[in-house]
Amino acid sequence: MSLIDQLVEILDPSQVLTGADCSRFASDWTGVYRGAPLAVVRPSSTEEVSATVKLAVAAGVPIVPVSGNTGLAGGTKADGALVVSLERMNAIREIRPDARVAIVEAGVVLDTLHAATADHGLTFPLAFGARGSCMIGGNLATNAGGSNVLRYGSTRSLCLGLEVVLPTGEVLDLMSALHKDNTGYDLKDLFVGAEGTLGIITAATLKLVPRPRAYATAMVATNTLGEALSLLNRLQETTGGAVEAYEYMPGNTVARMLAALPHLRAPFDAPRAINILLEVGASAPRDVTPEADGSLPIVNILQECLVEGMEAGEVLDAVVARSESHRAAMWALREANAEVALARKPAINADVSVPLDLVEGFIDQIGPRLQRIDEAVEAHVVCHLGDGNVHYTAYPGSDDPSLVDRLTEEIEAFVEELGGSFSAEHGIGIAKLPSMRRRKDPVALQVMRQVKAALDPKGLMNPGKVLPNA
Amino acid sequence: MSLIDQLVEILDPSQVLTGADCSRFASDWTGVYRGAPLAVVRPSSTEEVSATVKLAVAAGVPIVPVSGNTGLAGGTKADGALVVSLERMNAIREIRPDARVAIVEAGVVLDTLHAATADHGLTFPLAFGARGSCMIGGNLATNAGGSNVLRYGSTRSLCLGLEVVLPTGEVLDLMSALHKDNTGYDLKDLFVGAEGTLGIITAATLKLVPRPRAYATAMVATNTLGEALSLLNRLQETTGGAVEAYEYMPGNTVARMLAALPHLRAPFDAPRAINILLEVGASAPRDVTPEADGSLPIVNILQECLVEGMEAGEVLDAVVARSESHRAAMWALREANAEVALARKPAINADVSVPLDLVEGFIDQIGPRLQRIDEAVEAHVVCHLGDGNVHYTAYPGSDDPSLVDRLTEEIEAFVEELGGSFSAEHGIGIAKLPSMRRRKDPVALQVMRQVKAALDPKGLMNPGKVLPNA
Repeated sequence: MSLIDQLVEILDPSQVLTGADCSRFASDWTGVYRGAPLAVVRPSSTEEVSATVKLAVAAGVPIVPVSGNTGLAGGTKADGALVVSLERMNAIREIRPDARVAIVEAGVVLDTLHAATADHGLTFPLAFGARGSCMIGGNLATNAGGSNVLRYGSTRSLCLGLEVVLPTGEVLDLMSALHKDNTGYDLKDLFVGAEGTLGIITAATLKLVPRPRAYATAMVATNTLGEALSLLNRLQETTGGAVEAYEYMPGNTVARMLAALPHLRAPFDAPRAINILLEVGASAPRDVTPEADGSLPIVNILQECLVEGMEAGEVLDAVVARSESHRAAMWALREANAEVALARKPAINADVSVPLDLVEGFIDQIGPRLQRIDEAVEAHVVCHLGDGNVHYTAYPGSDDPSLVDRLTEEIEAFVEELGGSFSAEHGIGIAKLPSMRRRKDPVALQVMRQVKAALDPKGLMNPGKVLPNA
Repeated sequence: MSLIDQLVEILDPSQVLTGADCSRFASDWTGVYRGAPLAVVRPSSTEEVSATVKLAVAAGVPIVPVSGNTGLAGGTKADGALVVSLERMNAIREIRPDARVAIVEAGVVLDTLHAATADHGLTFPLAFGARGSCMIGGNLATNAGGSNVLRYGSTRSLCLGLEVVLPTGEVLDLMSALHKDNTGYDLKDLFVGAEGTLGIITAATLKLVPRPRAYATAMVATNTLGEALSLLNRLQETTGGAVEAYEYMPGNTVARMLAALPHLRAPFDAPRAINILLEVGASAPRDVTPEADGSLPIVNILQECLVEGMEAGEVLDAVVARSESHRAAMWALREANAEVALARKPAINADVSVPLDLVEGFIDQIGPRLQRIDEAVEAHVVCHLGDGNVHYTAYPGSDDPSLVDRLTEEIEAFVEELGGSFSAEHGIGIAKLPSMRRRKDPVALQVMRQVKAALDPKGLMNPGKVLPNA
């Protein structure tokens, strides 16, 4: 009996898709990575995922797990593989406000969790442009980052417990809600960020934090990135570390976004070279109890910092959000970035990180370095300045693969010189396999391969992703 | 040529100890775990550790890494094994204040790092009683916790990068100082908490945080633990999450400590059933700028909270530290605990965690449950109330091993009923091997064994620790 027939027998037959019904899973949202899945199953429970994996592995068929499919590195490309879509496993099993945890399945959309936790005065503080369609399973599998890492860390640090279907089909139950648990190796963090190559994450216990009672949000223009960093440090000091986001957009990035999406609002009356979207979250009652004039203390604290910056000549311009819709317009500009950056092709989507104090040097020097290779190269940059993560999209003058390779290598070589990473938050998938081969410490690669071979000896879990061939 | 002769050839011969010279390494500080090392080497560099491991593995000799040797679970017991002491690798290689990282070797004493970072207005926020003698290598190998986990997390979350000598002798360089780096599996967290069974940690890149400009510290008595938790939540809300420690000591624990160590100071004029040592750290200038009367805003905020608690009948008594020496006296009482708890034998040292809201039920009910097994049993309890970690030391009426087993199992069974962990922060070593066998999910144990076999196929790295025999 074929694998498909076996799957139809154990699952709801309408949830076993073949042929044209698979087309939605033949490509991710970037459209860059296209495959031809053998079939797609949409299990509704951990038990169904487990049974599916057992059958596929017995048949020697590779398995590609998919949740929101909003990744940027081709991690869900499925050629001749069985796609296991987690999208029907979308239950928020439990929210425990006192323990500040949410127990959720892999198919829960990130923004759905935001909405569900808001009712309790809490939030799951992971946020980025795809939050309306990305799902928790993929957030965990890629250790997603985003704009609030500065304050709350990446997905990894927001995850207390996991449920994983192993390549054997067994269910690994690591669903702890404890803050201290030293009982053997940290398996949880092995599966977080493994992009489905070691097993399928089906559920997780996630940390919630108090939802800030108010935000103080602003667009700020500075002379230099160095001055932008001093402003960040001053803000952190004054607010006791309450800066949630500190996002840098160069003037030409803003111009490109405004041209592409006319509904977006320009940050300032006049264009500025350095545009920073910053946000402070206020949790303490004394920061949100209105003053006599109706203003909020947290907004006043931010404004004082900005006025001081202006008097010191560091801050050129600043606009503080006056309403929730004003704040939303500021964020809309930032979050439109991926859509605009990826619309133009050919493109090299570098997602790099460097130490904070080296971001300015990287951005200043990488352009000229690339132009020495390709005079026509252009760049589109946004940067999570607070955590050193630069999204550097380079548009080469032609799609000649050797040119693309040389430009990519030049970016990576410079990042390596600065002690940085060639993949800060998007992961490896297939997009960054050449970089893994070139740049990752060979000893680390060898240990990763040993772990992969130990847990997935047949190499059927999302094969060809994360680890380059030896 | 014997292994010892080979080691003498490649290392400084005075750093290869045999016979009586090994006696210092024959036991850890608890005195409970005694072994007879084959020899002890004290390498001075990562290269020497690597060369040592290569020789020992070639000779088939087991290796036990040791740094401060202050563990509580027998993780350094070395019978017939080569002890690799990291104590001479005690360099703080670099402190980078702007990047807020310290690059240190495994033999650095925790308090030495505290002192070195204080000069920069920063701190490495890991703290517990052994901080004057424990070392970073052991802190990482056991994922040490302590009193500040509430605010800063365990050692794992304070570590950005690692250098590890693998069982092959190769050096795994994961010394990143980046806040975002998604390049393959998270190997760092596999070695943190592995208690030397997967390799020897030789150096680390550690996260530093701004050293609070001032602390507000108090001893508080409440009626119930439930009321103590509401007070904690109110304090967290008011201070925006700045509570650094929230340590519970029952009245009989305090009485036992005062009797054993007469230099300690009683928390209140009259004995109280529930004694909480709490500390708030103030980072923002506005919290430490003295008021007109010379008082600090952060202390006033704490005092207001306590007065409100008194008016509501929740807080029975409260003493706010008036000076640094007063604060030190409060901490001396708390930090003397391990010494006093472990002085009496036989003892069952349970280091358990349960969800925060179940701590009170655990502590109320475990005593009667144990007394049904052993009428004479007594208990000594301290608890990191803010993170649900209870150090429950039970003194059985006799040292009959079957009685000790039954009491241990009763504690663990109750912890399991509550969704807790049988080892919160001390790790497994050899002390908790029976618990691992009884209580750990068999699927998780199997995955741990697969990882161990993949990385250390000869089973020579700290053998017999962490993983019970299959």
